[in-house]
Amino acid sequence: MKVGIIGFGRIGKIHFSNIKNIPIVTERSICDPKAHDLDNSVRQFADWKNLIDSTEPDAIIICSPTPTHFDIIKYCCKKKIHVFCEKPVDLDLEKIETLQEITKVSKIICQVGFNRRFDPDFSFIKNRLENRDIGQIQQITITSRDPGLPSMAYIASSGGMMMDMTIHDFDMFRYLSNEEAEKVYTSAAVLVDPALKKYNDIDTATTMITTVSGLTCTINNSRSAAYGYDQRLEIFGSKGMLSVDNNTEHRTKIWSSDGKSSSKPLNFFLERYAQSYKLELESFFDCIKHNKDATVTIDDALKATKIAQMAMDSIKSGQVVYS
Amino acid sequence: MKVGIIGFGRIGKIHFSNIKNIPIVTERSICDPKAHDLDNSVRQFADWKNLIDSTEPDAIIICSPTPTHFDIIKYCCKKKIHVFCEKPVDLDLEKIETLQEITKVSKIICQVGFNRRFDPDFSFIKNRLENRDIGQIQQITITSRDPGLPSMAYIASSGGMMMDMTIHDFDMFRYLSNEEAEKVYTSAAVLVDPALKKYNDIDTATTMITTVSGLTCTINNSRSAAYGYDQRLEIFGSKGMLSVDNNTEHRTKIWSSDGKSSSKPLNFFLERYAQSYKLELESFFDCIKHNKDATVTIDDALKATKIAQMAMDSIKSGQVVYS
Amino acid sequence: MKVGIIGFGRIGKIHFSNIKNIPIVTERSICDPKAHDLDNSVRQFADWKNLIDSTEPDAIIICSPTPTHFDIIKYCCKKKIHVFCEKPVDLDLEKIETLQEITKVSKIICQVGFNRRFDPDFSFIKNRLENRDIGQIQQITITSRDPGLPSMAYIASSGGMMMDMTIHDFDMFRYLSNEEAEKVYTSAAVLVDPALKKYNDIDTATTMITTVSGLTCTINNSRSAAYGYDQRLEIFGSKGMLSVDNNTEHRTKIWSSDGKSSSKPLNFFLERYAQSYKLELESFFDCIKHNKDATVTIDDALKATKIAQMAMDSIKSGQVVYS
Amino acid sequence: MKVGIIGFGRIGKIHFSNIKNIPIVTERSICDPKAHDLDNSVRQFADWKNLIDSTEPDAIIICSPTPTHFDIIKYCCKKKIHVFCEKPVDLDLEKIETLQEITKVSKIICQVGFNRRFDPDFSFIKNRLENRDIGQIQQITITSRDPGLPSMAYIASSGGMMMDMTIHDFDMFRYLSNEEAEKVYTSAAVLVDPALKKYNDIDTATTMITTVSGLTCTINNSRSAAYGYDQRLEIFGSKGMLSVDNNTEHRTKIWSSDGKSSSKPLNFFLERYAQSYKLELESFFDCIKHNKDATVTIDDALKATKIAQMAMDSIKSGQVVYS
Repeated sequence: MKVGIIGFGRIGKIHFSNIKNIPIVTERSICDPKAHDLDNSVRQFADWKNLIDSTEPDAIIICSPTPTHFDIIKYCCKKKIHVFCEKPVDLDLEKIETLQEITKVSKIICQVGFNRRFDPDFSFIKNRLENRDIGQIQQITITSRDPGLPSMAYIASSGGMMMDMTIHDFDMFRYLSNEEAEKVYTSAAVLVDPALKKYNDIDTATTMITTVSGLTCTINNSRSAAYGYDQRLEIFGSKGMLSVDNNTEHRTKIWSSDGKSSSKPLNFFLERYAQSYKLELESFFDCIKHNKDATVTIDDALKATKIAQMAMDSIKSGQVVYS
Repeated sequence: MKVGIIGFGRIGKIHFSNIKNIPIVTERSICDPKAHDLDNSVRQFADWKNLIDSTEPDAIIICSPTPTHFDIIKYCCKKKIHVFCEKPVDLDLEKIETLQEITKVSKIICQVGFNRRFDPDFSFIKNRLENRDIGQIQQITITSRDPGLPSMAYIASSGGMMMDMTIHDFDMFRYLSNEEAEKVYTSAAVLVDPALKKYNDIDTATTMITTVSGLTCTINNSRSAAYGYDQRLEIFGSKGMLSVDNNTEHRTKIWSSDGKSSSKPLNFFLERYAQSYKLELESFFDCIKHNKDATVTIDDALKATKIAQMAMDSIKSGQVVYS
Repeated sequence: MKVGIIGFGRIGKIHFSNIKNIPIVTERSICDPKAHDLDNSVRQFADWKNLIDSTEPDAIIICSPTPTHFDIIKYCCKKKIHVFCEKPVDLDLEKIETLQEITKVSKIICQVGFNRRFDPDFSFIKNRLENRDIGQIQQITITSRDPGLPSMAYIASSGGMMMDMTIHDFDMFRYLSNEEAEKVYTSAAVLVDPALKKYNDIDTATTMITTVSGLTCTINNSRSAAYGYDQRLEIFGSKGMLSVDNNTEHRTKIWSSDGKSSSKPLNFFLERYAQSYKLELESFFDCIKHNKDATVTIDDALKATKIAQMAMDSIKSGQVVYS
Repeated sequence: MKVGIIGFGRIGKIHFSNIKNIPIVTERSICDPKAHDLDNSVRQFADWKNLIDSTEPDAIIICSPTPTHFDIIKYCCKKKIHVFCEKPVDLDLEKIETLQEITKVSKIICQVGFNRRFDPDFSFIKNRLENRDIGQIQQITITSRDPGLPSMAYIASSGGMMMDMTIHDFDMFRYLSNEEAEKVYTSAAVLVDPALKKYNDIDTATTMITTVSGLTCTINNSRSAAYGYDQRLEIFGSKGMLSVDNNTEHRTKIWSSDGKSSSKPLNFFLERYAQSYKLELESFFDCIKHNKDATVTIDDALKATKIAQMAMDSIKSGQVVYS
């Protein structure tokens, strides 16, 4: 199977490295403005259309900037090439709806990069929930804090905290609960760096989602946790509770005259979610191989983006936004 | 010092027992509809006015039903008797405001029973916060779940979950943050027992409070946690995070073919907060002895009750309520 | 019931305070070289025989220096006065054997102060063991480290680390295992303070006890743990393991750029074992009241002392000592 | 670099897989009595001498049965081929001494498979120790328990528990302490399966090692821990303590009416020490590449085997064995 990777930044490199260990992938090509020092067997292109036309790949992995996603996916649909697309698929809901339709019609397998669903801890929890270990889910608490602000250049083109960062948590809410957001309320502020105000963005946010069943999901976000990358879940149900704490740099405890101390969380998402990046691609190629439906779809991207839009509306209005 | 306890139910008995170890308390009397099997040195009354007139106490501890609080405190103000009053002081905001005024004028020491402020873990955290260990507070998460529903008779006269149960958490928010609620949003449901609907009450609620500084406080409440009484705090600030987990029945870990298991939380509030009940009375008598202002005042009761009222309004309207 | 306390140092004061809450104790007297500032109801003596003859107590609590124990217990046997005696009963095995005989003949209740058996965590574990939760016990690990060296004056008259400190662990081994020591091996050294060599004592010791069944018990002792008073148990059996970690000063976790830190252990034995001191006396007076056999006997003291003697012989010979 | 793997059982397969990711390894061949279903690029041999003569490898990885190690290493020395040899190198001390000499003379790099030194948790601890974080090491406690008995066929040729299993812990003692065993005492028994007595082997053992400095190291071994593979370290020093708990199957906590439960340890050594198997080979090839001395040498194998021999002598004599 021939695979092309479009975009060769941080995440493109991760996927490039991970598909090395997927046996059915025999040829790899990449597309990036810059040339990279890679094995001769890897063909390199500066233009994505050129890559597709020249290599006629079976699958494309899209890691290029968000504004390019729409055209690439459209072209792949036309060429019947399977697509793995990084999040966010697009910042515009209508465009995502268009992609939803054309990927459906073209019958390609199109998976979206909500990698956290594949994290072994989170999928363990998902299994326990489906097994009804804690009965009916009533309250979900997601803690999702970054270790520090990204660059202002990144902020400027990110689509804002809700679209860029919290979107993972919105997907996690849907994944864990199997329910949809009926009401969304977000209370947000700039508490870390006033420079964000220029970009009309925020750095600290607490979001509460309510579903028709009465389930609530609270999401605590910050762009800057002093103790590092804070990624935790807690799910309360009628028969018990499931929780997962941070994965840490090391597991040693140090006892001294200051007390007992232990490690900071793994820093940052590339380390914390390393396993999930591998597993999401294994799933993607497994779906292609066995002609199965994608596990994370454009529909999931659409619904998470809708929640993000509701959250942004809530921040603006200072009120609860109903679906 | 002569002390009268009005109301001799569960909490009245706790206070009666705890004041035994307060050296300046030399005489104890109680008032209760029923006679109790107590030491001869303890005078018993069926009518609270009778107790006050007959024993001329230095201080009164009010543990009788909420509707009686107003008249008792008024009478104590007139007689210049110091008052310790269980929560809720009253369900009516205007009446609490009246009490606020007359206790101020009468110059008695009047402490309200928000005992959790005196819990050693919570006051340890309070000290760390005041020491600025985690910098500026940005997000507070309070988990406060009961192990099971109270009787429907109790529910009927409780004033509802917000007034009866969450009021402790509203006070905790004010205690920890040193800020006031600007906006309150509560998403609540009946998920445990449909019978509650008859009483227009709820059993599961998630509340989000926002202050003017942008700090948010999330409160997770349930009347029924399968794993017992769940009382936890987590406070996130610009320089770090403080958290305190449940206090447990025992500290032994058991390793078996099923994994590692440890104890349930202490059940119920009389066990979990035993220490706080002692310390709040020590503080009360210490204030009397040294003629200091009460540490938890009618004003604190008023403000917590106002938040509870906002939360109830929010449940009704489905919208954020502004102060 | 009239109770006399002989010796009014640190531990005497603890017992004096604790028996206040034991209802059947109506009169308290003390014996100490120094006069103490106590309630008028407490009679004070400088001579223990004088206390016994003058007050004709029902029970005596012995907290005076070890060399005085023998004569006091003998006198109490003669007078049929129940005895609670602090450890060590005596440093001389023959004398303890004599006491074993005469207390038996006199039929008094004589309890020895191995308080740790009454610690709620340790007695919880004992119950689990008796319930066969972990099947047959195979390996016990006791960690027992002090936060710092006692004074050299104390060391000089202590009988040495094994008799003074490890004796608690020897009793714990017997309590948990219900077995006797067949072989004892102790590897000891002076690693903390060379001054101990003058007293022929040691400050760091690891002891291994083996029983006839093949069970081993390892005891890790140090006079000086930098992180405080370290008191832990771990019991491995055919069906699982039980462990209990240190009880700490507070339960708050602090997350910062240095990682996650938590509290030091409770410091020192008066705090860590506060509950056990109360419960051992409750048990003592309960035995008197209901005329039951003491729960911790002179026989227990004798057997623990024998193990201590074997350990001292092992240190001297550098070899395993057989019973 | 051409690499031959001799022996293609459980551990041979692990190494075969791991060297795939070592860039300088370009050709792989294996030697095993059975033919295996492998990539055509891998040459297969039934006779190890044949493999060496035919492929002229740069390095050999020895995973064949212990009795074959001696001859293979000798032959590699003659041919100047670098050797990675699984533990135990040999059960006979004299033969190991011979290998020590000839590997030295031949100047090949010869690394021994004490993989645990490369475990990230243990090497983190080693770094902390070298950094003197806990000052002078005084007491080491190693817990090393298998989840169940191996087959009796394995037992029969294993060399016994000390040579087969505890040898890892003896190496760990040397690695952590940087000291040598002066005295060894092992108390061992058959508590799991009486069938072991036929093989003159034991299944439960507690070993205490003392060094000249007075440091003690206690090792708790069992062939059968009900709760799985138990691999823990605790190191006590003059300034603090370091400990590392088990690595678990998952990190989720489940709270129910039975209390809080968490995961069993990773089962078994292939999972628990997966990372260490990778890292030890990376180290081996790194030493070859940069012509550095091996990090774990035949000398380390010799010294660990000597401790194992002392432990076996101690079990036989019931006494402490001096070096």
